[in-house]
Amino acid sequence: MTRLAVDLAKATRLLNHGPTVLVSSAHAGRHNVMSAAWSMPLDFEPPKVAVVIDKATLTRELVDASGEFVLNIPQAAMAQATLRLGRESGRDQPDKLARSGIQLDHASRVQAGLVRGCIGWLECRVLPTSAAVAGPHDLFLAEVLAAWADERVFRDGHWHFEDAPDELSSLHYVAGGHFYRVGPALEVEL
Amino acid sequence: MTRLAVDLAKATRLLNHGPTVLVSSAHAGRHNVMSAAWSMPLDFEPPKVAVVIDKATLTRELVDASGEFVLNIPQAAMAQATLRLGRESGRDQPDKLARSGIQLDHASRVQAGLVRGCIGWLECRVLPTSAAVAGPHDLFLAEVLAAWADERVFRDGHWHFEDAPDELSSLHYVAGGHFYRVGPALEVEL
Repeated sequence: MTRLAVDLAKATRLLNHGPTVLVSSAHAGRHNVMSAAWSMPLDFEPPKVAVVIDKATLTRELVDASGEFVLNIPQAAMAQATLRLGRESGRDQPDKLARSGIQLDHASRVQAGLVRGCIGWLECRVLPTSAAVAGPHDLFLAEVLAAWADERVFRDGHWHFEDAPDELSSLHYVAGGHFYRVGPALEVEL
Repeated sequence: MTRLAVDLAKATRLLNHGPTVLVSSAHAGRHNVMSAAWSMPLDFEPPKVAVVIDKATLTRELVDASGEFVLNIPQAAMAQATLRLGRESGRDQPDKLARSGIQLDHASRVQAGLVRGCIGWLECRVLPTSAAVAGPHDLFLAEVLAAWADERVFRDGHWHFEDAPDELSSLHYVAGGHFYRVGPALEVEL
């Protein structure tokens, strides 16, 4: 796998089709990863994203303390780890990452790690405007400082799932362990 | 097609897997529909959603005036209309809806219409907390007042795309006329 830098002007395309993500975070040497179905792009240039991070989570504590996180896009082969990372809390399970087989690589702009085996990564810094919505809605707004993708499935600003094995597809969570993989491409002209 | 009411406690599941939506809006008898890739659930009970609505759009004018909108989930057969509804503005094209073949049915709780042929619908009222983020980020936070789904593909709180024809799948937009259809289901147990 080669992890290629994604042009920041096209970074939101990693999230545009609505994949489930893993939110990685770190503060004072403590790392965590949780899954999140509720994230989306918020702006193009500079690229920004929005993500919901519940108050009860260790991730929330680490993001509140550091002002940073990474949105990692897991491949379909990581469906079980993705489910587990959403159900277990790093508060109750100090070895949560090991139990889910998660390994972290260093990011370029933030302390939070890049989850190995994912197909896309967005390194993010929380925006001051988050303050108004983090309290009432657990909603974080952040600028994307750097973005990366697995070149087997994302090149030239577009996903190319149709050229890769099914297990490299993105995951789209519904509920109760029920996911969808992304399906066939449709090219539409007006 | 039978449009069934979705239990409000499960309404966010319509959006959880990240489909591209159509935002319908109305004020003083004027109706519009635009496509939006940037929406997500925000809370379970009461169900809430977040969606980005650019200041340049007629939809923004109608949502600002009415405080309401509907998120409609188009089926794959509506990919061309979805692309057109994102590229043309109701400001420049007063006959935008007719040009895209859009027909609206009455909603139950809001003035905005339900786009016929879609597979899911969320009738929404803008929350006061939106005021802090609508200006800087074009971001609207809203409560879901009623939700509906095409029973051929959403029953018992879950999507069932695998039991229906491909054209009833949800759409997931990337950029430049490039969409994905939702793919096969994955059932994961821990």
